[in-house]
Amino acid sequence: MPCHVALIGVGLVGKQVVHQLSSPALSPLFRIVSLSNSKHTVSIEPSSSTLPADDLLALLPASSAALPSSSSHPGASYSSANPEQVVKDLAHAAKHSKTSTILIDCTSDLSVTQLYPLAISSGLSVVTPNKKGFSSSNELWQQILEAQNAPGAGLVYLEATVGAGLPIISTLRDLLKTGDEVTKVEGVLSGTFSYIFNEFSRPGVKGGPKFSEVVKIAKANGYTEPHPADDLSGSDVARKLTILSRLISANPSSLPALPSFPEGYASLPTQSLIPKALEGLASGTEFVEKLPEHDEEFDTLRAEAEKEGKVLRYVGVIDRMAGIAKCGLEKYPAAHPFASSLSGADNILAFHSHRYSKSPLIVQGAGAGADVTAMGVVADAIKVAERTGVRVHL
Amino acid sequence: MPCHVALIGVGLVGKQVVHQLSSPALSPLFRIVSLSNSKHTVSIEPSSSTLPADDLLALLPASSAALPSSSSHPGASYSSANPEQVVKDLAHAAKHSKTSTILIDCTSDLSVTQLYPLAISSGLSVVTPNKKGFSSSNELWQQILEAQNAPGAGLVYLEATVGAGLPIISTLRDLLKTGDEVTKVEGVLSGTFSYIFNEFSRPGVKGGPKFSEVVKIAKANGYTEPHPADDLSGSDVARKLTILSRLISANPSSLPALPSFPEGYASLPTQSLIPKALEGLASGTEFVEKLPEHDEEFDTLRAEAEKEGKVLRYVGVIDRMAGIAKCGLEKYPAAHPFASSLSGADNILAFHSHRYSKSPLIVQGAGAGADVTAMGVVADAIKVAERTGVRVHL
Repeated sequence: MPCHVALIGVGLVGKQVVHQLSSPALSPLFRIVSLSNSKHTVSIEPSSSTLPADDLLALLPASSAALPSSSSHPGASYSSANPEQVVKDLAHAAKHSKTSTILIDCTSDLSVTQLYPLAISSGLSVVTPNKKGFSSSNELWQQILEAQNAPGAGLVYLEATVGAGLPIISTLRDLLKTGDEVTKVEGVLSGTFSYIFNEFSRPGVKGGPKFSEVVKIAKANGYTEPHPADDLSGSDVARKLTILSRLISANPSSLPALPSFPEGYASLPTQSLIPKALEGLASGTEFVEKLPEHDEEFDTLRAEAEKEGKVLRYVGVIDRMAGIAKCGLEKYPAAHPFASSLSGADNILAFHSHRYSKSPLIVQGAGAGADVTAMGVVADAIKVAERTGVRVHL
Repeated sequence: MPCHVALIGVGLVGKQVVHQLSSPALSPLFRIVSLSNSKHTVSIEPSSSTLPADDLLALLPASSAALPSSSSHPGASYSSANPEQVVKDLAHAAKHSKTSTILIDCTSDLSVTQLYPLAISSGLSVVTPNKKGFSSSNELWQQILEAQNAPGAGLVYLEATVGAGLPIISTLRDLLKTGDEVTKVEGVLSGTFSYIFNEFSRPGVKGGPKFSEVVKIAKANGYTEPHPADDLSGSDVARKLTILSRLISANPSSLPALPSFPEGYASLPTQSLIPKALEGLASGTEFVEKLPEHDEEFDTLRAEAEKEGKVLRYVGVIDRMAGIAKCGLEKYPAAHPFASSLSGADNILAFHSHRYSKSPLIVQGAGAGADVTAMGVVADAIKVAERTGVRVHL
């Protein structure tokens, strides 16, 4: 029997998820039973005929449209978006039909993640690339963990929250579950920072472009948020590092404890690269216009690194032995993988452990993008299906 | 109910597997019911008291010892090693007790892998770092694949066959199962070759040590087999590449087909680095003594690469677009991850795909060693346990 899937958030990633789940290989494993955007939910009778991805997506009215009174598909029915109601309906249907049901959250809303404890304790599995639930308050994180202990509860899968489709969460999990001690996790976890510093600070190159120039080009190429300060604050990296740190802390270890980050990423020491004078500037365009006034600060940092034969990289570091996690600029020698082998907007993450002590286990590649993020989500959904007895061969 | 585990092959890797499975976190999930070396099998009553890893291992007489008439542990009984009988007894017990049972093969024997089809079709799951079953004849490979289709059959898990604990098979699987098209797989898959060429051919360095010198040091440090020709033949890389190639071919794709390698790794084009004059030399010591006579050939290859600003690396390449797989020496520019960021005896593998097209998904780290190989095995065993409903939390 296929798993039922309810998808909340049908943007670029959500659409890709629908396409991947509807592939000939996977469509026998999954049955999409509801799609929600910020305004509407379309529920699809599991017994109705299976639709190709595009037809399925076409059932959902645009967020700006009015709720249709009926649909061309006899199995489709509509309601105003209400994620809590979606979760309750799913849980009710899952209990009734004894069907394994997956809630896929492709929003970036904190409010949807606040429904995870209810969803999980009601027996739904949650699969998501949404970082908010795992990197905000420790209270919500603990509620999510504890929900998994309820009788008949579902589990939560979050591979795509860090590095999109890259095997980062699963690798950390394999290390921890097989009893390795992870001593240090260090990496470039933001495609934006990766691009900016790969351009700004190249191994073996004296000087280079102005920081403001690089940011301007990054923005023009879509490598930054509309307001670059949203990237330069470091909060996206801090959220990812909070998740990795909490996963480490959720496993027994004899190494020094890491902080619990009561307010999540906001409690994690994070170096902001927003110049003091530009903090709180509302317009991204104005921000980019004024950034050249601060190029000197970045030139100085680069020159200091050059003097040591090093390059600048914005990284997240969990140092287990020191019991700390932090985000900020660090200097790496030219031969270091973060300096020499990183290019474009790639992410790179190095796991140091008792087993990988001579040299770390490294994972590298595109860490953002709709298709690779959807891949992380769908790979997790396959794991849920396998837990229900579905056989996915080699 | 814990999964039952039968382990055949209790060498360095097998011992580590027993230790990892016996950890406080995993011991509730697994119950070791038999251990076999080349001479003896000890069967342990699942209902008897659980033993710590060292006590469990102490139950098995050394290969050279006589079969004990009794044991200090009341749940242990002995027989002469007969892997086929072990499989049959396991299958019988599994059917009777309806317990999920895992056969872990930590030998490097082809004969044990020939039992996989029987084991799998009898309902046992097979977890192994043994490459032989998947890289020998296509006939055996197809029998293993087909065995999984029998009613009530088990599945096969082979993460540790390529790169030990590195997430290589699982990453390839996630790419393929979520519908990506893998266009090229390329990597340094042998710790021996990695060490040899990282020393012999360094980016940005003119000349370097003699090839024979590097091999001699590698042998002295245990980076080669007792007879270095066993590494220099390239057959270990060819076996790993055969496995990756067959996994790719087992999934639907619109790209050109790869060869079926009827004789497995022996059918895969493989460049041997054994000098013609030294082929068939029985003694590893004599091989190392005579190798300096052939240093000039390697000097020439290195000089040619240097002229192009490149380094030499011994790699395996699957080029899907060209429909080929091959192993041999290739040249890489100094800034390439295979040149710049590889060190020691690390493996590195790059997956190029439609989704990872701008830059590949890269996995890097130690690809050999008892503890990391056991980790790959145990991570697979956890996946089997999860398929039976065991809940392993974050």
